[in-house]
Amino acid sequence: MERKRLLTGDRPTGPLHLGHYVGSLQNRLKLQSEYETFIIIADVQALTDNYANPDKVRANVLEVYKDYYAVGLDFTKVHIFIQSLIPEIAELTIFFTNLVSHAEVLRNPTVKTEILEKDLTSRVPLGFVMYPVSQAADILFCKANLVPVGQDQAPMIEIAKDIALRFNKIYKTDIFPTPQALFGNVSRLVGTDGNAKMSKSLGNVINLNSTTEHVKKQVMSMYTDPTRIHTTDKGKVESNPVFIYHNIFNDNSAEVKDLEDRYREGKVGDKEVKEKLFLALEKFLNPIRDRRAIIEKKSPQELLADLIESTNYVRKIAKQTLIEVKEAMKINYEG
Amino acid sequence: MERKRLLTGDRPTGPLHLGHYVGSLQNRLKLQSEYETFIIIADVQALTDNYANPDKVRANVLEVYKDYYAVGLDFTKVHIFIQSLIPEIAELTIFFTNLVSHAEVLRNPTVKTEILEKDLTSRVPLGFVMYPVSQAADILFCKANLVPVGQDQAPMIEIAKDIALRFNKIYKTDIFPTPQALFGNVSRLVGTDGNAKMSKSLGNVINLNSTTEHVKKQVMSMYTDPTRIHTTDKGKVESNPVFIYHNIFNDNSAEVKDLEDRYREGKVGDKEVKEKLFLALEKFLNPIRDRRAIIEKKSPQELLADLIESTNYVRKIAKQTLIEVKEAMKINYEG
Repeated sequence: MERKRLLTGDRPTGPLHLGHYVGSLQNRLKLQSEYETFIIIADVQALTDNYANPDKVRANVLEVYKDYYAVGLDFTKVHIFIQSLIPEIAELTIFFTNLVSHAEVLRNPTVKTEILEKDLTSRVPLGFVMYPVSQAADILFCKANLVPVGQDQAPMIEIAKDIALRFNKIYKTDIFPTPQALFGNVSRLVGTDGNAKMSKSLGNVINLNSTTEHVKKQVMSMYTDPTRIHTTDKGKVESNPVFIYHNIFNDNSAEVKDLEDRYREGKVGDKEVKEKLFLALEKFLNPIRDRRAIIEKKSPQELLADLIESTNYVRKIAKQTLIEVKEAMKINYEG
Repeated sequence: MERKRLLTGDRPTGPLHLGHYVGSLQNRLKLQSEYETFIIIADVQALTDNYANPDKVRANVLEVYKDYYAVGLDFTKVHIFIQSLIPEIAELTIFFTNLVSHAEVLRNPTVKTEILEKDLTSRVPLGFVMYPVSQAADILFCKANLVPVGQDQAPMIEIAKDIALRFNKIYKTDIFPTPQALFGNVSRLVGTDGNAKMSKSLGNVINLNSTTEHVKKQVMSMYTDPTRIHTTDKGKVESNPVFIYHNIFNDNSAEVKDLEDRYREGKVGDKEVKEKLFLALEKFLNPIRDRRAIIEKKSPQELLADLIESTNYVRKIAKQTLIEVKEAMKINYEG
C-alpha cells in the first residue's frame, strides 16, 4: 500500500522559532519517514496580510527553506514547495468556494480570532475571509491524510474536511481523503515574556537561527513567577515560562525535576534556573546551527533551483489531481 | 498603436436570447473590428450557482459558442475562450482578493441584487461573494479597456477599476489599464410576459435559436396594454412589451410609427401588431438561423477543437500578464 501523505507548512514572513518547533516541526521530523511529507512555503497566503510588503515575503522564502534543512528535515525525502508555483491550488480554491457558505467561513473560530489578533476588524481583506478555503486547497490538492497543526488551527481543518466530503458527494467521486489534524505536543509556546503570542515585534522570540548572544539575552530576561520577590520565596513552576521551556527543551529530566523541586521550596535562584535553560537551549540549537552552516554554503541561486526542482515534483501531483477534479466537475474539455 | 481591447462574455447556462442581443451582443458585433475582442465563456462562474449541476454548464458551452457564430461574430477576428482553461484567471482572482475588503464586496449593489434574485439569502456560497473579484480577473488578465455590459453590471466594473488602480499603485506598476463599461442600447429587455426578468423558467423568452413556431407562440401570447379591453379602445404604447420589441427588432420604422399611431387611436387590433412583430422577428432571426445551420454542420468534437485552439491563443496572453504580475508582486522565482 502507498504511504499516507502529510501536508504542513509555513508562511514565509520571518524566521522559524521555538514556537514553530513545538507546534509543528517536531511532528514533521518524527513523521517524515512514516508519511510522504509535503511542506508548503505559503507565499500567496503570506501576501494576504502582507500584500503591500512583498519584499518581506520574498526574502523569507529561502530563509524558511534553510530553517527546514537546519531543523533536520530530510531533503531527500520530503517535498518542499512554493505555493505560488502551483497554480492548481488557486484553481482548486476557486472551485471550493462554491462548496462553503459565506456565513460558515465567518463563523469559523480561527478566522474570528485571527481577525482580532491581526487587528483587521476595521478592514477585512476578502483574501483573509478566503483563507480557510485556500488552506483546504493546500491540503487537498496533494490528498493529504494528516495535517500537523497547532490546536488553534483545528477549526480550519474542519472546513477542509467538510469541503473534501462535500466535493466527493456532490460530484459523486472519491478523489479526496478526509484529512485529519495532528496537534503538536504544546499547542502554543508562550513568548519569553510570558505573552501567549510569540512575535518578532514583541521581541519575545527565540529563533532557530538565533545567535548564542541572543539566546542568552532572551533567556536571562525571561519572565518567571512574578509573585516571587526573593530567591528564598517559594516559587510557582506551573505557567512559569522558564519551566515551560525547561520541560520542552532540556533533555536532562533529572535536572529539570531537581530545579522544579528547589524552586517550589525557595532553594534556587532565577539565575541558576535560567543559566541551565540557556545551556539546554544551546545544546538543542547547536546541531540546528551546524546544519544551517552546511546549507548556507549554497548560493541563493542554487537553493532556489533546488526548491524549484522539488516544487516541480509536487506540481505533477497537483496537475494529476486537477485532471481528476475537472473530470468530476465536467469541465474536462481536453480529456 | 495597438488596437484597444474589449472583454465580454456569457455564463454557459442556457441558450442566448433576445435580451442578450440588446444587452451586449449588438455592441460586440458593432465593435468587433474596432477593438481586439475577447469573449469569455464563463464556465467557472456559471458553476458558482450551478455547482451541483455541472452537466448543464458543460452542455451549454458549445451552445453558446454556436450562438456566437450564429449572431454574426467573426470567428476569424474575435478570441472566444473557455474560462476554466485559463488557470491564470484563478491565480489573479486569488491575488486580487487581498486588494478588496470583504465589506466592499458585500456593499456592491449588483451582488446585493443578485443574491436576492437568485434566492441565495439563506445560504450565500463564498464563491458568489467572490464573483466581482473573479470578474475583475476576467477583465484584467487580458488588459481589457472596454467591457460591454448591462447597466445592472455597472457596480461590478467599478470594482474591477478599483482593483486595477490599487494593484498598479501598491506594486508600483502600470500593468493594468482602467477598464471602462459600455452599456447596451437597452439596459434590460422585458420578457414577453412583461416581466422585467427574462428567464427560461418563466417561459417568457425568445432565444436566438427559437423555432418559427416558438417565436409565433411567444409573440401571439405577448403582454400588451392590460387596460385595453377592445380593439377600439385607445392603447398605450409606452411600457407595452409588443411595442418595446417592435422598436428594437422591426427595421421598418415607418411601419412601427404607423402601428403606434393607430394603437394610440384605437384603430388597430393586438393581432395585427403582433403578427407584424412576428414577421419582423422572423426577418431578424432568419439570418441568425442560417448561420447556425452552417456551424451546426461541424461535429461537437470539431467545434470543441476550434474553441480550444482559440482559447490557447488567449492563454498565451494570460501567461504573459501573469509573468508581469508575479514580477511586480516579487513572486517571480523563475524569472
